[in-house]
Amino acid sequence: MKFIRFKPKNEQTILQGIVTDAGIQPIKGDIFSDWEMAGHPFEPNEVEMLEPLTPRQVIGIGANYVGNQNDLPAEPPELPVFFHKPVSSVIGTGQPIVIPQGIEQVKFESELAAVIGKPARHIAEDDVTDYIFGYTVANDVTAPQYFHEDGHWMVGKSFDTFTPLGPCIETELDPDTISVQAYLNGDKKQDSPTTHMIVSMRKMIAYLSTVMTLQPGDVILTGSPLGAEMMQANDAIMCQVPGIGELHNSVEQRAGVSIQ
Amino acid sequence: MKFIRFKPKNEQTILQGIVTDAGIQPIKGDIFSDWEMAGHPFEPNEVEMLEPLTPRQVIGIGANYVGNQNDLPAEPPELPVFFHKPVSSVIGTGQPIVIPQGIEQVKFESELAAVIGKPARHIAEDDVTDYIFGYTVANDVTAPQYFHEDGHWMVGKSFDTFTPLGPCIETELDPDTISVQAYLNGDKKQDSPTTHMIVSMRKMIAYLSTVMTLQPGDVILTGSPLGAEMMQANDAIMCQVPGIGELHNSVEQRAGVSIQ
Repeated sequence: MKFIRFKPKNEQTILQGIVTDAGIQPIKGDIFSDWEMAGHPFEPNEVEMLEPLTPRQVIGIGANYVGNQNDLPAEPPELPVFFHKPVSSVIGTGQPIVIPQGIEQVKFESELAAVIGKPARHIAEDDVTDYIFGYTVANDVTAPQYFHEDGHWMVGKSFDTFTPLGPCIETELDPDTISVQAYLNGDKKQDSPTTHMIVSMRKMIAYLSTVMTLQPGDVILTGSPLGAEMMQANDAIMCQVPGIGELHNSVEQRAGVSIQ
Repeated sequence: MKFIRFKPKNEQTILQGIVTDAGIQPIKGDIFSDWEMAGHPFEPNEVEMLEPLTPRQVIGIGANYVGNQNDLPAEPPELPVFFHKPVSSVIGTGQPIVIPQGIEQVKFESELAAVIGKPARHIAEDDVTDYIFGYTVANDVTAPQYFHEDGHWMVGKSFDTFTPLGPCIETELDPDTISVQAYLNGDKKQDSPTTHMIVSMRKMIAYLSTVMTLQPGDVILTGSPLGAEMMQANDAIMCQVPGIGELHNSVEQRAGVSIQ
């Protein structure tokens, strides 16, 4: 099932919905526990899409893909590079990524994102998918110019609009048989199967659950394939996981948006 | 005014309250916008204190104090070391800090924490205090053993129980005339005025507001004075800002709590 959030065009009301053959069916309630259909379906052209959830928190992992299966290390790293991204950086499909004034380019990174559906603490690798509600596509946008020389990525990963998520949360997906792709202005730049992850999604989430209690609405970005590049104003970036959908964002540099 | 959260003893209900001469007065509503008194006051010994808020997010800054005024640099660093801590790491006064199995010590860091009260985007340094709802005391607990050698602090700062906050949010406080203190087993280990901050609280929050939109409930940890040390099971740590209150936590190593 595909869960989304949207606004009917020309309205300010934010609705949740599911994508059905009859169109976009509004629902009400908590997608993680108890929800029901509410009202009549909309046609896709009657709505403005939003990020499919407001995450409780967003956690990512650094440099997590190899170019091909033979390059996978015998053992994953003992201490993976994890980082947080602020919820304020999340936008949906169709919304612009804004480059902070003072720089001209930012990097795209297409990723498979897992949405946690149940409280998870010290869970086993084999049980991880029982705790995943569904999957969405993420673009882990970064401004490497704002990475601290001592290795702290916080500022460079935290600007508003730097975490596009969407278009939907797909609950029916086999995370082991999919590929993660990115197209910059229509040209394919990233395309790798999830089997090229250095730290597998299951290992990553099991490990995180030994550090902290994960909760429904937590979003785990599972790393980006080789091929990520810089993008600049007027570019169009599309991140895709076939089976979930396409996450489209334009790139803007707005006057008056500055970090100084 | 001092805002708190608490549970009446032997009950599971979580209440908000204010500390008055008559005791702990329950309130209802949103402390950032509209609230009112609700019910009869409790005596302090009738309640179990909790963290004074569930933060929307927690942001900290690295190594932000000098030993004395003369050591302050002429210019603050161009790119401060900021980091996120997960909301799952927050506990209140009186609750135990749990050392992850496999290590024997963790570090305490007493800090002044600012609670944002209004949406803040591109705000000027001179206006920062207008956006601050109040102040609490934080203990930025860390396990440096889990800092990544490439400079990523995420895992070492993210364990459950690693961000004690409390005892209250004090809305009447002059952040420029206070000191930040820590006592380990009764011995004073940290005691510095906030004027020893390298990046002042106002600069820090103004800078963060150029990166991301800060929101009510965001908690900004302003760094820890010199003198932070390691602590181990059965230690008692008390972090204090006179004018706010005392944040007491014991240190435990529980069987079955493991990161492996």
